[in-house]
Amino acid sequence: MGMNILIAHGGGPTAVINRSLQGAVEAARDDGRVGRIYAARFGAEGILAGDLIDLTGASAELIARLGQTPASAIGSCRRKLTDADYPTVLETLKKFDIGAFFYNGGNDSMDTCHKVNELAKAEGLDLRVIGIPKTMDNDLTCTDHCPGFGSAARFAALSASELALDASALPIHVVVAEYMGRNAGWVTAASAMAARLTNCPVLTYLPEVAVDEDRMLADIERAWAQGRGLLVTVSEGLRGADGKPLADTGIVDGFGHVIPGGTAQHVTDAIIQKLGLKSRAEKPGLLGRAAMPYVSAVDREEAYAVGRAAVKAALAGKSGYMVSIQAVRAPVYASSMELVPLADVANAEKTFPLEWIAGGNAVADEFFDYALPLMGGDWPEYAILR
Amino acid sequence: MGMNILIAHGGGPTAVINRSLQGAVEAARDDGRVGRIYAARFGAEGILAGDLIDLTGASAELIARLGQTPASAIGSCRRKLTDADYPTVLETLKKFDIGAFFYNGGNDSMDTCHKVNELAKAEGLDLRVIGIPKTMDNDLTCTDHCPGFGSAARFAALSASELALDASALPIHVVVAEYMGRNAGWVTAASAMAARLTNCPVLTYLPEVAVDEDRMLADIERAWAQGRGLLVTVSEGLRGADGKPLADTGIVDGFGHVIPGGTAQHVTDAIIQKLGLKSRAEKPGLLGRAAMPYVSAVDREEAYAVGRAAVKAALAGKSGYMVSIQAVRAPVYASSMELVPLADVANAEKTFPLEWIAGGNAVADEFFDYALPLMGGDWPEYAILR
Repeated sequence: MGMNILIAHGGGPTAVINRSLQGAVEAARDDGRVGRIYAARFGAEGILAGDLIDLTGASAELIARLGQTPASAIGSCRRKLTDADYPTVLETLKKFDIGAFFYNGGNDSMDTCHKVNELAKAEGLDLRVIGIPKTMDNDLTCTDHCPGFGSAARFAALSASELALDASALPIHVVVAEYMGRNAGWVTAASAMAARLTNCPVLTYLPEVAVDEDRMLADIERAWAQGRGLLVTVSEGLRGADGKPLADTGIVDGFGHVIPGGTAQHVTDAIIQKLGLKSRAEKPGLLGRAAMPYVSAVDREEAYAVGRAAVKAALAGKSGYMVSIQAVRAPVYASSMELVPLADVANAEKTFPLEWIAGGNAVADEFFDYALPLMGGDWPEYAILR
Repeated sequence: MGMNILIAHGGGPTAVINRSLQGAVEAARDDGRVGRIYAARFGAEGILAGDLIDLTGASAELIARLGQTPASAIGSCRRKLTDADYPTVLETLKKFDIGAFFYNGGNDSMDTCHKVNELAKAEGLDLRVIGIPKTMDNDLTCTDHCPGFGSAARFAALSASELALDASALPIHVVVAEYMGRNAGWVTAASAMAARLTNCPVLTYLPEVAVDEDRMLADIERAWAQGRGLLVTVSEGLRGADGKPLADTGIVDGFGHVIPGGTAQHVTDAIIQKLGLKSRAEKPGLLGRAAMPYVSAVDREEAYAVGRAAVKAALAGKSGYMVSIQAVRAPVYASSMELVPLADVANAEKTFPLEWIAGGNAVADEFFDYALPLMGGDWPEYAILR
């Protein structure tokens, strides 16, 4: 009888989160020292309810299909565990005789990991805890980048290229596209890749810099006047000069939070009303983290590798760490999986360097030096004859 | 010196319109009887301005890249030619000594084709005119379906599947997604494929049936109550009980037209305000006709074939026809390219069969019998473990 393990997902999924699950399950099976392989149904909710999925007998073919499945195959939730919850968590871990616990998530999840590890130590529990990094937002510290980001960035780069080509080939309206990222511009920045791939006019606005709406409209009017069509990409969290989100739906949800978003529609409305131009707004939204045909090959392999590395670390007796991706970019891109203490990661945030925002409406080369290798290469070469 | 030919694009592009251009150019080169190969820069605008692109010397490699290029590689426009324009059109055709003219487009373009053909005959011009069908909306008559539809339908089917999985894996909000199609539900109907591919709850609303908003919200509330998340897909042209579009932005463009759209956001707002549920709206918009990774392999090949067939017909002396796709679906799907008189096609419209709309919020099997073969097969098998 080997050691039982438990894997859980926390927060929003990415296009490759299930690849990490695949890597973890396959590593556990390859090792031979693992007993039962459990997954928490809907993340923390499943842990608290003692509702685990037993993957021990799942066929190799089913596990391999995880790599082509978006969203979380085992379910996730947004519940952040409170101090009152931890005793119940430990209860479930004991009940299923879990020897190693893996939490796949972002900042909140790494904080949870850290607390579970500390608590288990304090109670003398023989439990190993390893965090598996994941967030399309790329805002985890202590790692070169996060699994999930490369694919979200590739989606932004390619979908923006496709929209820029459409906007340029039939230049009857300014096309405004909104990309995910309420606080961090990492993903929206990748949409600026469209200018490189298509040579069509593209303006990009990130949430890190408050926009002066009049100046933004002047930029748009000037770019449109070139007569080559125009794509404007905006982050959903774009803020105006007053520091508030540009788009305020005015709607309050059941939790008392104002629902943000609709930023592209807001900019489109301003273009129509103040510039007298035709415009249309697009919002691929959650497709940015779920569109499997845009998955980055590099991201896909690294997501698998972090899952494997997590299981390998726990089986080697490590606990209290997150798997971290270390990368070199020259002479060619290469990455390796290392371990960093959870205490260093928990509740810190990696911000987008302000100096990478060029002139307020474009992205500096330094961003692409950083992000391009993560997006997977194999870029299309378009035939533009007009 | 062979016969000079001219190819033009009309109206909105599709993901495979450039494949038809590739087919036409390669057929012209293979035949050996063609002199110069011209393309109109930005469609009718280029014809009227005598602004043609000379593709005669374009490399085979560049022409082959058309197949991976979205939007129109030669440019298109929305200008509908009037009687006053036709003399200028004939002037350009004479100036460049055009022997065969190919117009790739939808209903309006086929009407234009027909008129150019009649006028050329009346003036004794030695001109052959062939229409190449194209529209993601699938509303052309006299053909089993239109090139461009299969890829738009595949995009709707797969992107809705990805959104349904996300909505189900993290069931914190009702996800509402808007698909293109102001008058016809062909594309949005394909999004109902998500229920088959994922087994997640999906409700689909087409523009052909006016919705009773209270009943729609009751459907949504009931589906949500199952606790498995929910995706609602709506057509951008969805109408309310009063026959008017559900979403009225209240904004009038420079041409005096009210800008439609925002239907998903409208439904989302109603869900939040009237049902007290969390909800978010997505609008992939133009990606529905531009997202190359979702192109249907069948659509891609048929788009190429209609381009080839058009050139072949003209070189065989035919004029006044549109290439039409004839298809059989049993025992296996097969299609062939035929010719139908432009007079039969011009200004008619293929409507979505009302009997294919099941219960107002789903799509009948008959639709999938019709549309599935066009979407290209090779469907992903997802691993859903929760």
